[in-house]
Amino acid sequence: MHLLNEQSTVEAQAMQAKKAGKRLSLLTTEDKNHALISLAEHLETEFDFILKANEKDLEAGRSKGFTEAFMDRLALSKTRIFEFADGLRQVAALEDPVGKILLKKSLDNGLSVSKISVPLGVIGMIYEARPNVTVDATGLALKSGNAIILKGGSSAIHSNKAIVDVIHRALIHTKIPKEAVQFINSTNREDSQQLFTMREHIDVLIPRGGGSLINEVVSNASVPVLETGVGNCHLYIDQEANPEIALRILVNAKTDRPAVCNAIETVIVHQDWLNKHKIDLIQTFSAHSISVHGDKKVVSEIPNASLATEEDWADEYLSLHIAMKVVQDIDEAIEHIESYGTRHSEAIITENNDSAEYFMQRVDAAALYHNASTRFTDGGALGFGAEIGISTQKLHARGPMGLEALTTVKYVMSGNGQIR
Amino acid sequence: MHLLNEQSTVEAQAMQAKKAGKRLSLLTTEDKNHALISLAEHLETEFDFILKANEKDLEAGRSKGFTEAFMDRLALSKTRIFEFADGLRQVAALEDPVGKILLKKSLDNGLSVSKISVPLGVIGMIYEARPNVTVDATGLALKSGNAIILKGGSSAIHSNKAIVDVIHRALIHTKIPKEAVQFINSTNREDSQQLFTMREHIDVLIPRGGGSLINEVVSNASVPVLETGVGNCHLYIDQEANPEIALRILVNAKTDRPAVCNAIETVIVHQDWLNKHKIDLIQTFSAHSISVHGDKKVVSEIPNASLATEEDWADEYLSLHIAMKVVQDIDEAIEHIESYGTRHSEAIITENNDSAEYFMQRVDAAALYHNASTRFTDGGALGFGAEIGISTQKLHARGPMGLEALTTVKYVMSGNGQIR
Repeated sequence: MHLLNEQSTVEAQAMQAKKAGKRLSLLTTEDKNHALISLAEHLETEFDFILKANEKDLEAGRSKGFTEAFMDRLALSKTRIFEFADGLRQVAALEDPVGKILLKKSLDNGLSVSKISVPLGVIGMIYEARPNVTVDATGLALKSGNAIILKGGSSAIHSNKAIVDVIHRALIHTKIPKEAVQFINSTNREDSQQLFTMREHIDVLIPRGGGSLINEVVSNASVPVLETGVGNCHLYIDQEANPEIALRILVNAKTDRPAVCNAIETVIVHQDWLNKHKIDLIQTFSAHSISVHGDKKVVSEIPNASLATEEDWADEYLSLHIAMKVVQDIDEAIEHIESYGTRHSEAIITENNDSAEYFMQRVDAAALYHNASTRFTDGGALGFGAEIGISTQKLHARGPMGLEALTTVKYVMSGNGQIR
Repeated sequence: MHLLNEQSTVEAQAMQAKKAGKRLSLLTTEDKNHALISLAEHLETEFDFILKANEKDLEAGRSKGFTEAFMDRLALSKTRIFEFADGLRQVAALEDPVGKILLKKSLDNGLSVSKISVPLGVIGMIYEARPNVTVDATGLALKSGNAIILKGGSSAIHSNKAIVDVIHRALIHTKIPKEAVQFINSTNREDSQQLFTMREHIDVLIPRGGGSLINEVVSNASVPVLETGVGNCHLYIDQEANPEIALRILVNAKTDRPAVCNAIETVIVHQDWLNKHKIDLIQTFSAHSISVHGDKKVVSEIPNASLATEEDWADEYLSLHIAMKVVQDIDEAIEHIESYGTRHSEAIITENNDSAEYFMQRVDAAALYHNASTRFTDGGALGFGAEIGISTQKLHARGPMGLEALTTVKYVMSGNGQIR
């Protein structure tokens, strides 16, 4: 009985979202922007309410012995909440992705044909920790005319619930029905799994989190999925790499924010470059406390390097560990990336433009870099505005996904009796 | 042992396709067009070889007692094969969808950012009967730089195999490796199911056929799917519909080609319009041998109409049967479409532009028509060129899918040492 009740609750929420989404899709840009600004104001006014809920999550996290990095992502502060509010104001300032006429023409028979951008409908967001996703995803969904169903990680449930309470209180004063933002107030895995197959009520699922969460959704969902973010990214230092550029980018891409998806996990070094610049490379690893796991060649050349296992090549460290491979040529580097990369961001450092061009053509990934850091794979850094995630899939959207990724199209034909 | 051998065969084919796709993605537009024209010539030269194989399928079909409509779709002729060849020449004449620079800009830090269209990689095509799909899908895949794995219906296996043999003989003389076109020479359901989960080798699955085939793929595939074509399309005749236009479009959309997805299956009629034009409507049904299945009101008003069941509202007849519902207002019509439509093509007939606008905004479908026939939902008829199918999903591509739907993008960044 208990299970049955819960199932119907999630389904009822999805149906409410679908209905609210239909109303939301008809609102003007002004109505939507007004609502987003109202959300921002309420977050600022009620920051203390959110912090009290966050304290409950932090206490639970401490008692469970979560890592410092994890606790850091979980922790909110007045400053962070005000940043969330600023994020919403930035989304309000973005161009409305809905109602764009993408094509308009008239056929010889007089039939007028238009292709118009419209909201997807209902977005199911399944994510771990990070309460900022609750605000960011809601803002982007509402701006693009979509209802959203939020299923966050259990470790942040009090914070997420409080944020959604504030969102609901804010929406009452706007034209967006509060049912457009649904929160699955449950720590049951079964409740998120229910979302996987609700094809009638949910138009897309967006999982954000670690590889196992994303794999679970991709393998089990019949609702279409937008995959985001697992980044096993590589830096290939070519034979003809400028050593100053190579080491600067290595340090930035590995150490600036090791826990994010556009950080590198593996450096692939050409044998000839290594022979010339080994001392500098060793000093760089040492100066930045980078732990190296490499092939036999690496272990023999780099002090303190340990022998890499299959997992070292395949997994995201998200920390100051790095895998390192020595290659004889660019093809060996590309083959390694093909075998282990997640098609997120891959970089080559070289002064040889032909080699760079070859790398760009051959490597299959969302973002490719020549003499620049993989850390730029980010909607903000590339100047595209706020993003809902970085797609590592090929269909619909690839790379940083902004508001446009949350829309689809309608073809609208108008005539005076045309038949075929 | 048998099963193991077959499994490894399909996987080996998928791996060959992946490898060939990489080579194909680097070819020039001229190389690809030359190959398509060579395919066309070989089909024309070897039409008799294909017809002999087709005769085997026809014999088997006759002995199994397939319907006339089915046999008609299965049957080839010299004329039809020459039409396939013409189709390939038309695809050769289309603009190359690969290598388009969709965005190019320079950031303040000097980093250059480009967004470039690239092939998806490997397309898995799972389809029923209709041997023309073998040629059409191959042409579109190759033109867009993709390898293709073909798994056709068992009833056309000899025809499909012969067509692929001709394609392979043609490709030997071109720069496209013949491994770029893989044919699963099997009538085992398990062999198509193997394709469902080969995420490492196949980039997209495109099912073409009836609802049960499409549902099977959507429900079981972890490879991303482009859904095509189930069309439970509606024609809504509004209170203010011009009767001449309404009846002309009713006849065209129902009877021109009843077996295609953009034909209508249900007519929804406003009570007031029915009261005024009942005689004409009855005459139209009768003159075109259309059998009516309707609600109680319809049964009492239309001679020979039978009472509609739930299946009548939900299924595609693909024949001269039609479901009919009488409504009191436009909202009732829209709600019916929402409940039973497959989001393919929906039409309203009215002289009231506000009602038409309301219908266009409220109804969620790939293609919406005001005073025109749903039969126009077709890449050719709308002037978009050859299509790989009509997408009824919202992600990636919606409505008629041409070459662009078979591409994705790469972001390519070039710098001189930029870090974040």
